[in-house]
Amino acid sequence: MTINAYAAHEAKAPLQKFHYDESEKSAFDAEIEISHCGVCHSDLHLLDGDWGRLSQYPLVAGHEIIGTVKSVGSAVDETLIGKRVGIGWQRSSCLSCEWCLSGQEELCADISLTCVGNYGGFAERVILDSRFAHIIPDALDSENAAPLLCAGITAFSPLMRYANAASRVGVIGIGGLGHLALQYANKMGCHVTAFSSTEAKRDEAIELGAHEFVNGRDEDAMKKSRLSCDLIIATATANLDWSLYLRALNPGGTLCFVGVPSQPISVHAAALLDNRQVSGSSTGGRHMMQKMLDFSARHNITAWTEKLPMDSINTALERLRNNDVRYRFVLES
Amino acid sequence: MTINAYAAHEAKAPLQKFHYDESEKSAFDAEIEISHCGVCHSDLHLLDGDWGRLSQYPLVAGHEIIGTVKSVGSAVDETLIGKRVGIGWQRSSCLSCEWCLSGQEELCADISLTCVGNYGGFAERVILDSRFAHIIPDALDSENAAPLLCAGITAFSPLMRYANAASRVGVIGIGGLGHLALQYANKMGCHVTAFSSTEAKRDEAIELGAHEFVNGRDEDAMKKSRLSCDLIIATATANLDWSLYLRALNPGGTLCFVGVPSQPISVHAAALLDNRQVSGSSTGGRHMMQKMLDFSARHNITAWTEKLPMDSINTALERLRNNDVRYRFVLES
Repeated sequence: MTINAYAAHEAKAPLQKFHYDESEKSAFDAEIEISHCGVCHSDLHLLDGDWGRLSQYPLVAGHEIIGTVKSVGSAVDETLIGKRVGIGWQRSSCLSCEWCLSGQEELCADISLTCVGNYGGFAERVILDSRFAHIIPDALDSENAAPLLCAGITAFSPLMRYANAASRVGVIGIGGLGHLALQYANKMGCHVTAFSSTEAKRDEAIELGAHEFVNGRDEDAMKKSRLSCDLIIATATANLDWSLYLRALNPGGTLCFVGVPSQPISVHAAALLDNRQVSGSSTGGRHMMQKMLDFSARHNITAWTEKLPMDSINTALERLRNNDVRYRFVLES
Repeated sequence: MTINAYAAHEAKAPLQKFHYDESEKSAFDAEIEISHCGVCHSDLHLLDGDWGRLSQYPLVAGHEIIGTVKSVGSAVDETLIGKRVGIGWQRSSCLSCEWCLSGQEELCADISLTCVGNYGGFAERVILDSRFAHIIPDALDSENAAPLLCAGITAFSPLMRYANAASRVGVIGIGGLGHLALQYANKMGCHVTAFSSTEAKRDEAIELGAHEFVNGRDEDAMKKSRLSCDLIIATATANLDWSLYLRALNPGGTLCFVGVPSQPISVHAAALLDNRQVSGSSTGGRHMMQKMLDFSARHNITAWTEKLPMDSINTALERLRNNDVRYRFVLES
């Protein structure tokens, strides 16, 4: 089967029309006709070659996919055909290691990624393991749900791991990840503080569910936020003064990075002794994906998106490079 | 009541005989005649003024106390009189804040410390809140149990928080804390790896319960230890290459500092994304102290000690400064 897609042929080059032949479906595969695909900052990093050997050209990025199952392999229940499904960063895993067996497939050493070493979602269709295609609840529309498959799960997972309804949660950065983290934390019942250096985002942060907005550049406001959060999710990739955010943590609190600043985080062990933690998190396993989609549907949590036709992919990428989007481009076929 | 003690009158000065008058006992207090007191590195830091304003002279250090209750305040059950009890870092707390109410008194903002702002255990007796005096199980002898009140609980708490019987646990540093962490992890059923740069400690590490010994300076051995631990407890205060130990963690693993290296820990967020954590821990609450003492008695876990008479306190401190002890001095009255 020939699949039409958009590929970069070298780092930072504009995407061009591209087609490839997909080998026979294997027993657990599904062929998915793509209707929507979100454009994530990590697509940009891959296309720009920022992550070294993870980028292999021609490179078809895209890992926030929604589409319709068109055909399935011999081991797949045929009732999956016609269903609307979503695919995130993972397109298969070994399903037998410690991590897969405990529902943390994202940690599997033999994970196969949707657009690293495989052709991804900036395409007409994709063929991959049906067990990593997640049914999208009817209540979610495809355009606003596509970003949940990466940004959504990435914001949702650390909240499930480190927070409960009584937690006081901070979110650093109000962008693709942060605007979802604010919504999730609010609907989980938490007290929510948005930390941002962009004063203009104050009203949007409140609208998204923040109970408080703290300008990270306002020294007085940061002082007042001392000992105010049980969990702070750092979605920003800027190199901030993390000691300020460690001070904003309660004893036992966690500063969890879901974005990757270019510089290392410097933490004095003395600042951690009251059971504080600095951690990281990326996406989540299949059951977490299902919980996230179910929770999103129940609480009407969706990404704020701007829709562009798939053939405007280069426009989307260029504007994303300039942070000119609130908060996510979604391409529509 | 006049209490005889050993005090430093300025930073790094030898201790001298000293006495002070203790005010009336309050309702919950107990008067404890001290039989043993461990000598911890943090006593040395306090006496040497390493922690700034925490040191107020004359300073009576000592916070690994075992003694016998001689009298009690009006609110205390008189059956406590005659009992053998132990006191660690905490001598009282507010007992009403979030942390106290959840059994994490060590995190209380109004904590009162045994030898910071109060006269500690290098003394003939001490008067303090009986609710922070822990009954010592009969199976433990006082000399070897005294260090459990600080070093023991400090090693025990992160194991209770981050490990279970199936965990693979690493311990960096085989000293006052590390030699107890090895014993606890072993008796909890974990797989135990001792990391040390002192090859001469290999046999002792195995004797203490390590299943493996890895020389932290052996590059090949460190490479082989990649992805080998779910929890690594860092008891060393040297400034090691922490990235090596992060690499030794499994996905989801925790590097927990119970010692405080002088330099900040530098961690790239990318190294944490697979749900790894860098955390800190210090002592534990009252229920954790009771669990630790019970567990120690059940499994015959005690500190390896060298006993000196209380009036040899300056010898003990001087030798501790030179790391000339395996693994803990305990002073006996």
